[in-house]
Amino acid sequence: MKPSFNRRKFLQTAALSGAGLWTGPKLLASADLPFSHPDLGKSKWDLDTPALCLDLDKLDHNLKAASIPLQGSGVGLRPHVKTHKCPDLARMQIAHGALGVCAAKLSESEVMLENGINDVLMTGVNVTPAKIRKAMELRKKHPGFIQAVDNPQNTRDLQEAAKAAGIVADVVVDIDVIRRSGIPAGQPALELAQLVDKSPNLRFRGILAYDGGVQHVMGHEARKTRCLKTFEPVVDTYHLMHAAGLNMEIFSGGGTGTYDMMHGIPGFTDVQVGSYLFMDCQYLEIGGAKNEERFDDFEAALTVMTTVVNTNHPGRLITDGGSKAFTLNKPTGWVIGEPDFVYNAGSDEYGTITYNDASRSYKVGDPLEVIVPHCDPAVNLYDIIYGIRKDRVERIFPVLARGKSQ
Amino acid sequence: MKPSFNRRKFLQTAALSGAGLWTGPKLLASADLPFSHPDLGKSKWDLDTPALCLDLDKLDHNLKAASIPLQGSGVGLRPHVKTHKCPDLARMQIAHGALGVCAAKLSESEVMLENGINDVLMTGVNVTPAKIRKAMELRKKHPGFIQAVDNPQNTRDLQEAAKAAGIVADVVVDIDVIRRSGIPAGQPALELAQLVDKSPNLRFRGILAYDGGVQHVMGHEARKTRCLKTFEPVVDTYHLMHAAGLNMEIFSGGGTGTYDMMHGIPGFTDVQVGSYLFMDCQYLEIGGAKNEERFDDFEAALTVMTTVVNTNHPGRLITDGGSKAFTLNKPTGWVIGEPDFVYNAGSDEYGTITYNDASRSYKVGDPLEVIVPHCDPAVNLYDIIYGIRKDRVERIFPVLARGKSQ
Ligand SMILES: Cc1ncc(COP(=O)(O)O)c(C=O)c1O
Ligand SMILES: Cc1ncc(COP(=O)(O)O)c(C=O)c1O
Repeated sequence: MKPSFNRRKFLQTAALSGAGLWTGPKLLASADLPFSHPDLGKSKWDLDTPALCLDLDKLDHNLKAASIPLQGSGVGLRPHVKTHKCPDLARMQIAHGALGVCAAKLSESEVMLENGINDVLMTGVNVTPAKIRKAMELRKKHPGFIQAVDNPQNTRDLQEAAKAAGIVADVVVDIDVIRRSGIPAGQPALELAQLVDKSPNLRFRGILAYDGGVQHVMGHEARKTRCLKTFEPVVDTYHLMHAAGLNMEIFSGGGTGTYDMMHGIPGFTDVQVGSYLFMDCQYLEIGGAKNEERFDDFEAALTVMTTVVNTNHPGRLITDGGSKAFTLNKPTGWVIGEPDFVYNAGSDEYGTITYNDASRSYKVGDPLEVIVPHCDPAVNLYDIIYGIRKDRVERIFPVLARGKSQ
Repeated sequence: MKPSFNRRKFLQTAALSGAGLWTGPKLLASADLPFSHPDLGKSKWDLDTPALCLDLDKLDHNLKAASIPLQGSGVGLRPHVKTHKCPDLARMQIAHGALGVCAAKLSESEVMLENGINDVLMTGVNVTPAKIRKAMELRKKHPGFIQAVDNPQNTRDLQEAAKAAGIVADVVVDIDVIRRSGIPAGQPALELAQLVDKSPNLRFRGILAYDGGVQHVMGHEARKTRCLKTFEPVVDTYHLMHAAGLNMEIFSGGGTGTYDMMHGIPGFTDVQVGSYLFMDCQYLEIGGAKNEERFDDFEAALTVMTTVVNTNHPGRLITDGGSKAFTLNKPTGWVIGEPDFVYNAGSDEYGTITYNDASRSYKVGDPLEVIVPHCDPAVNLYDIIYGIRKDRVERIFPVLARGKSQ
């Protein structure tokens, strides 16, 4: 497979790029360290591999960059923690002005709420009796916890559980845009919102709609057209609800691919960006407003360090990072500094690199730095993320919600 | 996608099949419980989902079934713990006659050795100074630890480190069969074995060769032909080494797909079966000696319990198990009892089932039991495996080597 010009150019220069754009106060002082760790101070090139690394200068850039196109638009950020699963990173997002965070699952929400993140909007639904009960306990303890619903029976179940818990629980209605979660837009959504609104132990806070299928549409213009088109029925629903006198305090949606496209949408309040913090090969390929070739609004901050373990065949390197270090294999991982390398992580324990051109020769034991195909599931493999500044481990991020898919 | 007849028939009957074949003593008495857990005694249908479950009767069957075709052949089992990452399961494999276990990585080997598994053959290589040092420390503490090498420089590095540690370390030479790990067969392998043999602080124990590409060849006959063909250069190498007077105590290789094909290979000592203990959709499809349609030597013991969270579209069910519950999505997961369901786990947090026929109607909150596409990386997502007998949680297996890919 021949890498695109886009990818080629990017990988040739990636080692040089990043950081330096921002001069504001660093929120990543070593005083923030959650615990001492034997790898603190080590060079990232000496880490035991596979190791998940986060460049702190690039992270700083990304934390700030997401707000730039939104300044003065009235649209805020409610970053999705499904990407990073680290309360420490959620805290930094809030320190950079986020309204709160989103979480995908109840167990993930719990980790955030129990670790000092007060405002959590759970974008998934809780449908089993045990989960509903636990959700209400969480809400009782943490008033900033907001839940989604997408069907009437579930709304009645939440009402009953909230009543039993002696609370009024905050609820948003999830609108179906990609035939995944959500209630159909229009009348069904309106009726559901009204059902929530008239439930004495539920408080209707607004709506949410995630256009997952649009996020990776190639090209900024094409993506924007698709995004606004996809949102039309949601906007109609917003107007219906607004006209019905419902509280439309929250109108949340969008992601990294559409974060700069939502402020024209009437009533829209906040973007649920997730991947922007880390970036990955999937997102680098889609093109941005300033650069149709590469989506460079955000820096590729997240990488896996891996080691060459076999060089026995020409044009081929074997590494110690396979599917248990990357999960997905599509698009194939990008090796920093080596635009011609195709990194296949399809085998459980080994990565296989094939190439025609290399910038240098490689021997067994050499480390390589690889951008992951898709950040969310890759992070979900690791117990810690190494925070790297100028190639040294400056801090450790425990991935406290790792594996919290319940 | 239309499911094959094979899959259709299997899923219609799977709920009824399994177990009962064996009447020997149960090694899974509740006295073995590693710790108390609030879910003990619960029905698997009531577990918080996604949950990883292991049917203990089917596990019993699989533990025993692997030895059957090998009886009297002189070939033993050295099961690979990369599949399950649980010392408790390794212990059960050894209690069922395994010669020891294999492990993929150093950190995985360490978890086994430090948790009572004395005989561990590490099939991957250690190539960095830090890993080599740690490997020698482990070997010093645990005489049953055997390491692989596949290049001369690494052999010299191991020799030096073993000397520094004041030990004689046990080493096998890995032979290249799938252009992944290993040294080319024939003269290079012989010379490497001789280099090990004459290194004063290394003890040459034999060879290993894993024919990964052969394991999933469809059809028992076709697979056997490919397997024996692939092994020809390895067998030649074996003879070369034997003729050179080297210690050929270990000749290890093969996996679940070829476990019953290796005993004709001269000098072969043990099969490194991994997936046989759990099975998965990939392996169920390949066909076995007794059943060309389905590989039913082993029972599909491992499943993910998941919950329906959305039923808004006909012919479509959304569940709470996505790529963070399954990793791979190919082949798509199989839903027990529903041969027409196609389970797509391509989305991070959600599963999407599409179907034309269902055995019953489903509503939000209903649990579903799903066989995973590929067991190894799926297990690597979970901190515990629920041990289920007659639908109840009988014991908990902590996945102690979860995430140990270093
Ligand atoms: C509901 C919801 N909101 C927001 C996001 C964040 O998306 P992204 O990582 O594309 O920014 C996701 C990601 O899947 C999501 O499921
Ligand atoms: C070296 C080695 N041996 C044995 C196995 C076990 O294979 P299986 O799960 O096919 O039985 C594997 C699996 O990838 C392996 O890499």
